Amino acid sequence: RYGICPMVQSQQKLDRPLVRVQDLTPEKAEQQIWVRARIHTSRAKGKPALTKAQGLTKESIIDVEAVVKKVEQKIESCSQQDVELHVERIFVISQSEARLPLQLEDAVRPEGEGDEVRKVDLIIINLHRNLNTTTSQAIFRLQSGICQLFRDTLINKGFVEIQTPKIISAASEGGANVFTVSYFKTSAYLAQSPQLYKQMCICADFDKVFCVGPVFRAEDSNTHRHLTEFVGLDIEMAFNYHYHEVMDSITDTMVQIFKGLCDRFQTEIQTVNKQYPSEPFKFLEPTLRLEYKEAVAMLKAAGVEMGDEEDLSTPNEKLLGRLVKEKYDTDFYVLDKYPLAVRPFYTMPDPNNPKYSNSYDMFMRGEEILSGAQRIHDAQLLTERAMHHSIDLEKIKAYIDSFRYGAPPHAGGGIGLERVTMLYLGLHNVRQTSMFPRDPKRLTP
Amino acid sequence: RYGICPMVQSQQKLDRPLVRVQDLTPEKAEQQIWVRARIHTSRAKGKPALTKAQGLTKESIIDVEAVVKKVEQKIESCSQQDVELHVERIFVISQSEARLPLQLEDAVRPEGEGDEVRKVDLIIINLHRNLNTTTSQAIFRLQSGICQLFRDTLINKGFVEIQTPKIISAASEGGANVFTVSYFKTSAYLAQSPQLYKQMCICADFDKVFCVGPVFRAEDSNTHRHLTEFVGLDIEMAFNYHYHEVMDSITDTMVQIFKGLCDRFQTEIQTVNKQYPSEPFKFLEPTLRLEYKEAVAMLKAAGVEMGDEEDLSTPNEKLLGRLVKEKYDTDFYVLDKYPLAVRPFYTMPDPNNPKYSNSYDMFMRGEEILSGAQRIHDAQLLTERAMHHSIDLEKIKAYIDSFRYGAPPHAGGGIGLERVTMLYLGLHNVRQTSMFPRDPKRLTP
Repeated sequence: RYGICPMVQSQQKLDRPLVRVQDLTPEKAEQQIWVRARIHTSRAKGKPALTKAQGLTKESIIDVEAVVKKVEQKIESCSQQDVELHVERIFVISQSEARLPLQLEDAVRPEGEGDEVRKVDLIIINLHRNLNTTTSQAIFRLQSGICQLFRDTLINKGFVEIQTPKIISAASEGGANVFTVSYFKTSAYLAQSPQLYKQMCICADFDKVFCVGPVFRAEDSNTHRHLTEFVGLDIEMAFNYHYHEVMDSITDTMVQIFKGLCDRFQTEIQTVNKQYPSEPFKFLEPTLRLEYKEAVAMLKAAGVEMGDEEDLSTPNEKLLGRLVKEKYDTDFYVLDKYPLAVRPFYTMPDPNNPKYSNSYDMFMRGEEILSGAQRIHDAQLLTERAMHHSIDLEKIKAYIDSFRYGAPPHAGGGIGLERVTMLYLGLHNVRQTSMFPRDPKRLTP
Repeated sequence: RYGICPMVQSQQKLDRPLVRVQDLTPEKAEQQIWVRARIHTSRAKGKPALTKAQGLTKESIIDVEAVVKKVEQKIESCSQQDVELHVERIFVISQSEARLPLQLEDAVRPEGEGDEVRKVDLIIINLHRNLNTTTSQAIFRLQSGICQLFRDTLINKGFVEIQTPKIISAASEGGANVFTVSYFKTSAYLAQSPQLYKQMCICADFDKVFCVGPVFRAEDSNTHRHLTEFVGLDIEMAFNYHYHEVMDSITDTMVQIFKGLCDRFQTEIQTVNKQYPSEPFKFLEPTLRLEYKEAVAMLKAAGVEMGDEEDLSTPNEKLLGRLVKEKYDTDFYVLDKYPLAVRPFYTMPDPNNPKYSNSYDMFMRGEEILSGAQRIHDAQLLTERAMHHSIDLEKIKAYIDSFRYGAPPHAGGGIGLERVTMLYLGLHNVRQTSMFPRDPKRLTP
């Protein structure tokens, strides 16, 4: 009735199906089944052979032979509320070392109930791990869904997935905030974005490309939303006449992601909400688009003092998010036509007003999740703009040269995966949505 | 009729659809359309306004207004063989700098023909770029398909996609062949594989995980199949009783990829075959599985001298591939039960023979594309094996500790994306299937 299995070394191919806990429905009542589970808590009564199981450390993994029984009263504390297992046999598959002194916890359902069914010998196994882990699992399953929806939507739109190198020989954006790598007898850098490579693919007539991969920023920023390594969802696309073709394609992709999450990940959303309550994420179709000027006017009307071509501070970004939510009832919007001065040198100037640019940011719950723009596809203008920004032309020669042999007009953007996950779920720290977060002070695990 | 457009700065949203070259079918005959294309070669005759276009540099991008005309005789040299365009107007969108002296190339179809249709003024534009680029596009479109098929198959099997960090604090596999990164005031390493992180997810009950991302190897190997940075398709999965559950899941995933490529990427396969002819890729269902011992016996029978527990050399690997192809008519197979001595320390020993292990490699056209195994999920055995390999226990303490609190039996493997692409297409150098290859001597572009 109780035993410690030899280490599973693939000694045999047992013909003994294991039922998954989530498949234990009342329809299985009275069936004799096997379950593999992790011990969350235990209490033992009666049947002597099984009391040995009392000594089992929490977190141990066991195989349990049991009969499924319907319960009269829902077990509120468990994820399976309609059934319980009456244990016949227990085999230990992997024993946990004791982390906490073993304690018999209070039973999770009213005392005495259920006992009469078999009259004896009941071990209640909470078949799920602690709430925190349940929440984490939900967060990362939803994050997996974001990646999947992002790619599927783009592949349907005719995009091609590309793989760009992370070890690069020169810092394409001028050299600040970049990690250095020892590379055999020389040194190299970690890519801050796939920007140059996405654009090279466009110049090679790939037309529409995306990539999903790590992005590295050697910024000593210790905030709730900065990581030194995060996952970038990057898009670049040639357009016919106007960069809004690309912007609309990106907002539509985001909308498809929001809809897909809402349709397919309700269990995960609700699991996270139990621990971290938040309002459901709202969005409009088509996506709300505001010009930067309008945003500044809204902020000024709300009492903020700022210049017309000044960048948005983090508090102003958040305030703007609240103002937009009040006025338009959306948690997602695009801010278009940023002042040229606050954008990277490769941003295309606005043809109608040289102080502005063909660039945009996208926001979720008042925080930036994407930065994008029409890129300059003309080598001469690119050179002028780089000089204006005092960038060493030698260091970006390869980048500029890639536009000398016919380049289609194009635009794109980069999305931070962890931020999208955090803000969709209404969480408050990007470390909650990175499995193994990296920041200036954290390199492990 | 001819003009150089101002740089496309998104001045206007033109209501002028652009037809894609691949959509120019005979059904569009006599229609007046606009096409955006890159100039491959040009010759001009007659109509004076259009002769200016003769001066256009190759590679320039132009918008062309034209009438679609059916041709009597197929234009063998073009990808669109049934129609040609009779040009009305040409606007230059992006002018290429002259790389080659301009030359009027020979016309691609019999001289004189077609002229009578409009009697005058014909510019033939080869609407596709050179063969090499066409081949490259096909290779990378197919590679995008491999990633998509890999993920879709695994998501259907209940896997979750995870994101693992590339900057790590300690080299998990002991420290050789690892790139060092300057990390603020300390130093760190680039991950040689997501091994530890995949396994941590299994220990956290994620059950089945995969990831797609860069993998870094500081090996000074200058061969046709080694890169210092490549894309790893990684799988890790808890199993019930036997690691063959995982191995079968991986071989089935590969089979789904092969089938998907064959069904959905015939155009790309044939495009590549035109430049690099190869036999179609063959595979069996279920996948052929051989034990290492059998392979050694086959090699010995073919005259190879080698020890029973010796690793396969690259020439022997290739020879084995030929022998297997002759005997079983398959380009894909699994070699199971490798000698324990030639595998990493975390490989589970074979319970029936301590000289062998629960590990496997997978091969395509006689070259290894995946290495995998059941992993040791017991901290004590893992410690013993690490000591046997003279690995500094302090450096892998976090790794070993992750198995102290109940770990499910699990197995997995890692696939090299560029190798799969190369070998599926029968190419001979992994640099052909990496857009921006990195090796000990190459860091650009």
